[in-house]
Amino acid sequence: MTKKIDPWGKADIRDYGAIMKDFGIEPFSSVLKHTPKPMMQMKRGIIFGHREFGRILDARKKRKPFVMMTGLMPSGKFHIGHAMLAREMIYFQEIGAELYVCVADIEAFNVRRKSLQELRKIAIDEYLLNYIALGMKPGKVNFYFQSNHQTAYYRLLQMLPQRVTFAEMKAIYGDITPGKIISVITQAADILHPQLPENGGPKPVVVPVGIDQDPHMRLTRDLAARFQREFRFIPPSSTYHEFMKGLKGGKMSSSDPLSYIAMSDDSKTVRTKIMKYAFSGGGNSIKEHRKHGGDTKVDVAFSMLKFLFEEDDRKLKKIKDDYESGKMLTGELKEYTVEKVNSFLSAHQKRMDKAKSQVDKFLK
Amino acid sequence: MTKKIDPWGKADIRDYGAIMKDFGIEPFSSVLKHTPKPMMQMKRGIIFGHREFGRILDARKKRKPFVMMTGLMPSGKFHIGHAMLAREMIYFQEIGAELYVCVADIEAFNVRRKSLQELRKIAIDEYLLNYIALGMKPGKVNFYFQSNHQTAYYRLLQMLPQRVTFAEMKAIYGDITPGKIISVITQAADILHPQLPENGGPKPVVVPVGIDQDPHMRLTRDLAARFQREFRFIPPSSTYHEFMKGLKGGKMSSSDPLSYIAMSDDSKTVRTKIMKYAFSGGGNSIKEHRKHGGDTKVDVAFSMLKFLFEEDDRKLKKIKDDYESGKMLTGELKEYTVEKVNSFLSAHQKRMDKAKSQVDKFLK
Repeated sequence: MTKKIDPWGKADIRDYGAIMKDFGIEPFSSVLKHTPKPMMQMKRGIIFGHREFGRILDARKKRKPFVMMTGLMPSGKFHIGHAMLAREMIYFQEIGAELYVCVADIEAFNVRRKSLQELRKIAIDEYLLNYIALGMKPGKVNFYFQSNHQTAYYRLLQMLPQRVTFAEMKAIYGDITPGKIISVITQAADILHPQLPENGGPKPVVVPVGIDQDPHMRLTRDLAARFQREFRFIPPSSTYHEFMKGLKGGKMSSSDPLSYIAMSDDSKTVRTKIMKYAFSGGGNSIKEHRKHGGDTKVDVAFSMLKFLFEEDDRKLKKIKDDYESGKMLTGELKEYTVEKVNSFLSAHQKRMDKAKSQVDKFLK
Repeated sequence: MTKKIDPWGKADIRDYGAIMKDFGIEPFSSVLKHTPKPMMQMKRGIIFGHREFGRILDARKKRKPFVMMTGLMPSGKFHIGHAMLAREMIYFQEIGAELYVCVADIEAFNVRRKSLQELRKIAIDEYLLNYIALGMKPGKVNFYFQSNHQTAYYRLLQMLPQRVTFAEMKAIYGDITPGKIISVITQAADILHPQLPENGGPKPVVVPVGIDQDPHMRLTRDLAARFQREFRFIPPSSTYHEFMKGLKGGKMSSSDPLSYIAMSDDSKTVRTKIMKYAFSGGGNSIKEHRKHGGDTKVDVAFSMLKFLFEEDDRKLKKIKDDYESGKMLTGELKEYTVEKVNSFLSAHQKRMDKAKSQVDKFLK
């Protein structure tokens, strides 16, 4: 029986190794040493897998154009989970990629029942402003809206479904509806359209995704091959990142403010969220903790440091050792994390104010 | 079991009465007396059915805006079958409708393997020029390409499939593929988008179709109801016409030049096609014909006169009587038809030359 990943599902994926093997995703470690100035998330295995990332490295080496493509669903507050992906986008911009950032406003419209105007405002005030504050530069950035983009993109959107069958879609996605089909095809058009003649023709494109989005990559790569004659599409590459855990240990969810730290949270809120809600891997008592140590694998404060807030590998290593040995207490780890997060957010929030004046450079 | 009509099928539909009853199509005769300056095709029952045509009559009476919406698939030569539909479009323009004419170039691209540029050229040089020569006036005409239209249209295209299920699509169409879904949804967007706020909001729209296209009308009317909250769509109206028979008695087909008379055929070609190929309802010998008469129901020359070329009802009646009684011979009927067609085409071809200078007024 074919294994399936449901990109619309809520299920936690735990056995990454098995999925990588089943679907042919390579470990990122295989390309790490060729990757220029690798992100700390790459070195730490948070970005753990890829498909044909070599195409990107190759293009960069030969000074040929390449693209980083991603999408955002405008929904509520921009939080630290979004920030990690934004960092990856900015990393690719720094190593020379042109960026395509798709605002999935049509999808959001269908799901969230907000007007396109409201969704546009969220996309700009929350997402774009935070990207800029995190370091995104204007220039080679196409920040576009699904509801308002170039004709060639819509044309592609109408062509793609002609060369895929239900049987294939069911093999990839399991159950499917007309709404899901248009959503999936729209995403394929998003990923492929940077390679249209109107956008400069075939070139390597990398899409950073969570593994739950891999079905879209497989379908899109298949479709790329089926439009060889017309467009000479290069099958898109992808990187795979782990998700930052929610504060309480489950999923980080836009609809539950106590599951995340927003980039706009003030220092007091951050302190409360981490001290009171962040799931701890520490012992049940100080005595027990001192004896057995804490579990960094499930500790949310530790994971926040690892994913985003402690850039110093040696410091992180020391915290890990101290916490696991019981030398560092949960309260101390959390206190350290609160300080790191608040210092990061305080500087970020200042940059947010400055970012406003730059917005127009990103919108055509 | 639900009866189905396959709009992609080649099947001849014979029992119009049963289908009208099954699917709730009203006879056109029920609105004929309220219809202003009815076309001869309406009076002769060639346009035989409708759905909610009253909305159109009402809008016209109250001097409110209404729309005639139709599509064309750019493929080869413009022939007398196309001319009949063009006449209906022009009729609606004359009684006050704004026209929306969709060039289905994306669909044609997917089916015919011609470039969008070639298809655009066919749409303009064959279709638009003939429309103008047949009497279409610039002004309230939106002659647009599926591949190159307004954003609001593409936005609608992405929203519609969110509110329809596979079960419903299967109930209407039987077997369906991703390609058919996008094609069907595109047609629904074509029919509904004249009512978007960007195009002036809700208003009655009439779509002249063959009965094989009725499934699209049913789906679109259902979808209209499901977007009440957002757009207050009025369910589109439709008229139903019989198809002109092909010369040899079967279907008129763009891919078989001996099945039609092209608007660009010269008089010699017309003579050969009618004399040599047009299926005759006459007797097997003159003797037999004189005795039993001819069958106007299957005679292609007679049907050409009835559908398009003999506008005088009394003359048509006399020909029918004379042919059925055996007084008029097949050769005489064909000769009369050749004259009528050639006189029509000769004037038309002169108008075609003049039409060229008008094309720009129809393209924005």
